[in-house]
Amino acid sequence: MVIAMRQDGAATVPALIGVDWGTSSLRAYLLDPSGAVLDRREAADGILAIRADGFAACLAGHVASWRARHPALPIVLSGMIGSRQGWREAPYADCPAGVRAIAAGLLRFDAGALGPVAIVPGLVTREGGTPDVMRGEETQIIGALAASSDRDGVFVLPGTHAKWARVERGEIVEFKTYMTGEVFAALKGHTILGRLMSEPARDDADAFARGVGAGARAGSPGALLNRLFSARTLGLFDEIAGDALASYLSGLLIGAEIGDRHRSAAAITIIASAELTARYQTACRHLDIPTERAPADCAARGLAAIAGAAGLIEAPA
Amino acid sequence: MVIAMRQDGAATVPALIGVDWGTSSLRAYLLDPSGAVLDRREAADGILAIRADGFAACLAGHVASWRARHPALPIVLSGMIGSRQGWREAPYADCPAGVRAIAAGLLRFDAGALGPVAIVPGLVTREGGTPDVMRGEETQIIGALAASSDRDGVFVLPGTHAKWARVERGEIVEFKTYMTGEVFAALKGHTILGRLMSEPARDDADAFARGVGAGARAGSPGALLNRLFSARTLGLFDEIAGDALASYLSGLLIGAEIGDRHRSAAAITIIASAELTARYQTACRHLDIPTERAPADCAARGLAAIAGAAGLIEAPA
Repeated sequence: MVIAMRQDGAATVPALIGVDWGTSSLRAYLLDPSGAVLDRREAADGILAIRADGFAACLAGHVASWRARHPALPIVLSGMIGSRQGWREAPYADCPAGVRAIAAGLLRFDAGALGPVAIVPGLVTREGGTPDVMRGEETQIIGALAASSDRDGVFVLPGTHAKWARVERGEIVEFKTYMTGEVFAALKGHTILGRLMSEPARDDADAFARGVGAGARAGSPGALLNRLFSARTLGLFDEIAGDALASYLSGLLIGAEIGDRHRSAAAITIIASAELTARYQTACRHLDIPTERAPADCAARGLAAIAGAAGLIEAPA
Repeated sequence: MVIAMRQDGAATVPALIGVDWGTSSLRAYLLDPSGAVLDRREAADGILAIRADGFAACLAGHVASWRARHPALPIVLSGMIGSRQGWREAPYADCPAGVRAIAAGLLRFDAGALGPVAIVPGLVTREGGTPDVMRGEETQIIGALAASSDRDGVFVLPGTHAKWARVERGEIVEFKTYMTGEVFAALKGHTILGRLMSEPARDDADAFARGVGAGARAGSPGALLNRLFSARTLGLFDEIAGDALASYLSGLLIGAEIGDRHRSAAAITIIASAELTARYQTACRHLDIPTERAPADCAARGLAAIAGAAGLIEAPA
C-alpha cells in the first residue's frame, strides 16, 4: 500500500476517492480520512459531455491508477452526477440537513468493476411553496464547516447559479439560488446591452462599484428590469466607456444579489475560485459587508466528512 | 387633389405624411389634419435593415404614390430613425415635455427630392443621475392624449423595452424603461430556463397567473434573480408542465414590471397590439389594477398633433 506524507510529515493512509462531478467538469480526489488531498485529477468530462451509458467507464479511467493501488477504497460522488441528466438520480434530501442527514441520503449502488459507489443527495428547500435545489454545493458547505469551528453562518457560492445558504448548528437550514452568472451571460451575449460593450473588455473597478451601488439600492423585484437598461443608457451618454460596460453590468447583478440576501451584520463566507472570491469581496466591501474566504478544496473535505458520517471510512482522528 | 372621405362622410384633405420608423419595421400613414388615417403602408424596413445612405430612397419608395398626388405634404418621422443608428440623430428633449416642447425639438432638414423632412426628438429623463430614454413612444403617448379628454395618467407601452410614463397636464413628466420582452427572449433562448420548456408552447392561463403573482410579490431587486430560477424548479418538480413554463416566465417578468411601477389606484392606459394589450390586461386584473386601452393608431395621431403644434399643418378643427 502506498503511504502518502502530509505536509507535517505524518504518514497518512488514503481512505477515500471523492469526486466533485458537475455539469462541465470533473474533479477527482484521493483523500485521507480528514479530507486532505493526497492526489487529484481534473478534467472537462462534465456530465453533459458524457453519454448516459458512459459514466462508469469515464470514472474508471480517471481513478484507475488509484484503484490499482487501493482496490478497496470507497468512491463517493457529489454534484450534478446525481441529477436526472447524470449517472443515477439521487433523490433530494430536505432542509434542514447537516452532514448526518446528507450521509443518510447517499444513493449507493454497485458499479460493476468499480465496486460500490455512493452519490451524495442534493438538497431541496421550499419558500412559499416554491422549491429550490442544489447539487454539489451542499458538499462544499459541509466541507467548509468541517474546516472551521463555526457551526453557524451565511455561505455564498457564486457562479452561474449562485447559492446562498444559511447554516445553524451545522445544518443547512435554507438556501436560495440566484441566476446571476447565467443572466449576465445571456444579457451580454443576447440583448441590446451587449451592443455597446466593446472588446477587449476591461476589468473596470469604478464601473463595477457603480453597478454594485445601483443593483443594491432599495426597490422592488421589477426594478431590476428597469435598472438593467442603465447599462445601455450610461453607455449611450458616454458616462461609462464601452470596454467598462460589462464590469458595470456584472456589478449591477452581483449588487442586486448581495443586496437581496444579506440581512445580518455577520460575515458571509465565500466559497469560490480566487477570481470570483475577489469579485464578491470587492462588492461586499462596497456594501460594508464583512466576508471570510473558505479554505481550498471544500468539496474534497465535504466528501470525506459525508463518507465519514456514513461509516464508509474511519472518522478523522 | 384627391379628397378622402371620413367614415362620417365628411370630406377630408390629406395634410401630412407621418412615419413611425422603428428598429424592425416602418409604418407610413397618409393623414388628415386630425391624425385620421386616410391610407397606410407597412413594411419590414426597420432601420437595422437599411444602409446608412439608404433612408431617403427607402422612404421615397414607400410614399411615392402619395407624393405624386400631394407633392407639398410635409413629412414627419418618429422612432429610432432619429437615433444614432438612424437617418439623422435628433437630440433628446428633456422631460417634462408635452406636444409643444416635442414640436419645438423637431429636427428639420432638407431630404433632396423628398423635400423638407422633420424627425421627432426622443425624450430623456433622469432618476438619481441615471438617464432613461425613449424614441417613438413619446409620439404614441401624445397621440393617445390627443384622442382623449384626460390630461393626466399612467401610460404603459409593453414590448421588447416596455415604457411606463407618467403624464400630468398633458406633459410626459417622467418615464421608465423595463427590458421585460428582451429579457424574456434571452432567458428562454439562452439559459437553462429554456431547457425544460417544450414546444409547441401553450398559452397557459394558470401558469401565467401564478407567474404574475410570483413576480409582483414584495422583495428587493435581487429577488428577481432568485425567482427566475423557479421557472426551472417548478418544471423539475412537475408542478408546471413543460409547455406552460414559458407562460409562467412571461407572467413572472410582467408581474414584476407592473408591480414595480403601479403605485396609484388610477387606471393605467395600455398602448399596444391587441395581443400584448390582452396579456397586460390579464396581468393587471390579477393584481387588481384597472386598465384602459388606448385607441388604435396612436403613433399616427401623435405625428399629426406634433406636426400641428409645429405649424407644419393646420391645427385640427
